[in-house]
Amino acid sequence: MENIYFDYSNAGIKKYEIQYLKEPTRKAHEVLHEKTGAGNDFLGWVDYPVTYDHKEFEKIKRVAQEIKKDSEVFIVIGIGGSYLGSRAAIEALTHSFYNLCSDGPQIYFAGNNISGTYLKHLMEVIEGKDISINVISKSGTTTEPAIAFRVFKSYMEEKYGKEKAKERIYATTDQEKGALKTLAEKEGYETFAIPDDVGGRFSIFTPVGLLPIAVAGLDIDKIMDGAKEAKELYMEEDLDKNLCYQYAAVRNILYRKGKIIEVLANYEPALHYIAEWWKQLYGESEGKDGKGIFPAAVDFSSDLHSMGQYLQDGRRDLFETVLNIDCSKLDMEIKEEAEDLDGLNYLTGKTMDFVNKKAFEGIRLAHIDGGVPNLIISIPKMDEYYFGQLIYFFQKACGISGYLLGVNPFDQPGVESYKKNMFALLGKPGYEGLRETLMKRI
Amino acid sequence: MENIYFDYSNAGIKKYEIQYLKEPTRKAHEVLHEKTGAGNDFLGWVDYPVTYDHKEFEKIKRVAQEIKKDSEVFIVIGIGGSYLGSRAAIEALTHSFYNLCSDGPQIYFAGNNISGTYLKHLMEVIEGKDISINVISKSGTTTEPAIAFRVFKSYMEEKYGKEKAKERIYATTDQEKGALKTLAEKEGYETFAIPDDVGGRFSIFTPVGLLPIAVAGLDIDKIMDGAKEAKELYMEEDLDKNLCYQYAAVRNILYRKGKIIEVLANYEPALHYIAEWWKQLYGESEGKDGKGIFPAAVDFSSDLHSMGQYLQDGRRDLFETVLNIDCSKLDMEIKEEAEDLDGLNYLTGKTMDFVNKKAFEGIRLAHIDGGVPNLIISIPKMDEYYFGQLIYFFQKACGISGYLLGVNPFDQPGVESYKKNMFALLGKPGYEGLRETLMKRI
Repeated sequence: MENIYFDYSNAGIKKYEIQYLKEPTRKAHEVLHEKTGAGNDFLGWVDYPVTYDHKEFEKIKRVAQEIKKDSEVFIVIGIGGSYLGSRAAIEALTHSFYNLCSDGPQIYFAGNNISGTYLKHLMEVIEGKDISINVISKSGTTTEPAIAFRVFKSYMEEKYGKEKAKERIYATTDQEKGALKTLAEKEGYETFAIPDDVGGRFSIFTPVGLLPIAVAGLDIDKIMDGAKEAKELYMEEDLDKNLCYQYAAVRNILYRKGKIIEVLANYEPALHYIAEWWKQLYGESEGKDGKGIFPAAVDFSSDLHSMGQYLQDGRRDLFETVLNIDCSKLDMEIKEEAEDLDGLNYLTGKTMDFVNKKAFEGIRLAHIDGGVPNLIISIPKMDEYYFGQLIYFFQKACGISGYLLGVNPFDQPGVESYKKNMFALLGKPGYEGLRETLMKRI
Repeated sequence: MENIYFDYSNAGIKKYEIQYLKEPTRKAHEVLHEKTGAGNDFLGWVDYPVTYDHKEFEKIKRVAQEIKKDSEVFIVIGIGGSYLGSRAAIEALTHSFYNLCSDGPQIYFAGNNISGTYLKHLMEVIEGKDISINVISKSGTTTEPAIAFRVFKSYMEEKYGKEKAKERIYATTDQEKGALKTLAEKEGYETFAIPDDVGGRFSIFTPVGLLPIAVAGLDIDKIMDGAKEAKELYMEEDLDKNLCYQYAAVRNILYRKGKIIEVLANYEPALHYIAEWWKQLYGESEGKDGKGIFPAAVDFSSDLHSMGQYLQDGRRDLFETVLNIDCSKLDMEIKEEAEDLDGLNYLTGKTMDFVNKKAFEGIRLAHIDGGVPNLIISIPKMDEYYFGQLIYFFQKACGISGYLLGVNPFDQPGVESYKKNMFALLGKPGYEGLRETLMKRI
């Protein structure tokens, strides 16, 4: 069976540059696998495709079937790693207009912003429909999902009564402690566990990602198969033989050359949320201590008509990584017109995917000529199996890349600053001192 | 009446830095208004909110009413400037789930990618519904919309017959020449004109943007009122009195300090496509000759859980511009819970917008402390009037900013490279020589 392929032949990197990174990469591999590096409390994801709780996995499948049976609407309440992974999978692998034409429940995401307008509009759309909710939060106290869950909990209890409501609320949370765990036990919600040693941005293969993905009708066995295969493939410590480590090493080399922005490009709009998920993975893992590549994303060819000029001819601080799907899901043939006014008749009989691939090749060459190092991650096709493989590829590469950069890829200390400020300004008890300081600055 | 407000008091800019830019800004103003600078063939947008063709404007409103009456689905075929403006308006100003609950026609965008999967899925969703189409292309030969239009034209003619189909196809194109203009005349489509002196990314107030916006039920008179007011406000040549020019000048100062990435942040998910539109405006206008700020966008607070760590603590190459809506459209109150497990009871009686605003203030202070210069563009509320004002603010600032940077803000020569390559690889007649060269490189 084919696997994901990584090509850096057009990144302008010399052989000896890669060779210099062989030993550092081997060391990063060792530190990661022997759990001797920074953030080693959060390495549960490395072996997760094998070590995961198979009993809980079966429960996910069973519960997803129940939800599909009794719900017209399924609401996923979570933010960051608690929704980006499942959203990426659902958008990449289901119908482009899933909520408009799926047989299964419509799926909405809430609790990932603080917009009253969004929440009120969402309440309008689901009015009168049968609903289930998956609230996803390790602690249960993260502001955005906690607010949304208060709203939906009270809505559900009013709509169904407390007894029936609790059968439609599913909590994915800490195994033992925390506000949501306590509430779930008190109310009698079905719960799923977020492992202690898997951070939010690495949690897609846990129930965090898998329950919503299964409700969307996707095959989570195949996703785990792909992840497991990737785990095996990327165990190889030799940089020359490990494509995943090559992605990490090449990023590091480009960064040292001053390429401080990585633009992840796709040619299928359905991959948009894979890029959003990827931004969190790399931005949060590496953007610290004044370091890190700035992750940006474009949807081609759409964004060639917005960012194309910059990529071709703006500042040369960037490199481009293309997510290329070898074999498109559906395709369409271009037909002849009697009169060739638009000048497209030379494409008669060709398919849209043929045109899309030629666009990709032409753009790649143009950007290389424009001084943009080009990387390609080729995925044989976008199905559950390769989705799982791709996700693991990025996760493992991120761990290695973070160690090569010299950061702790598994923490996110920077996000505490704004949270503290926000709590203080909101008047949360315990933040009175900071509040006083901040009020003077506003 | 209140207007848009620009605040750069937390950008770390000294008074004399601004003073140094007074004369260059006055000069840029002069060059722009006297049309003596680079790209002066494309300055029609400057006076457009006053000089626009009022007769055609009335036709837009009339046609929009007809489309609303006889169509369940309205498809906008266009790429780049031919769809980003209308999409930005529709998402910012209508219901968050417009296509799921609007009384008017569902609105879909096509021809902005080359994905056969997307197009096939779209055909499935609209099956059996009454359709109108707006194809938007100056030339009619741009690959993406031309392919999509071939597909939909033949679909419509099969569905309705040639005679009826032509009454459901609206072409927004060149006034006199080009493939689409010729076809429209031959087939008898209703047409709308794209002015010769308004480039794609500046075309939102022309029929390019306004027809789809009117079909969505929005008040285009108010949009033009806002644009007109902005045109008056930002005629002032004195930098000290012109907030729009201050945005241009401050960007220029920050760029010279090494702040090469601008992150446009919003706190309302409905503003997402305003940022996409803004990326094209600034990326395409300034990203040339090896220069230009790299435009990036984040949706807060969502993306604080992905990009927040980087913004707080990554490389300090960036500054942040916040689109702040003073008064949110809808709001929701946070209610007390008997048992305060999630610890949110201190917010009882507060609204989500209150929390959202405190988040904004807390984040702003945290990022400033983290070394991120902060700009705020405050919009009194997000309605048609202020939307028009905001768009014009950004357009005028872009023209001035481009002249301050020393580029031609109104061309996009860089996008020719990839187009040529693509045509050659697709086998387009006339590109045989280039094709031979490129094939050797693949």
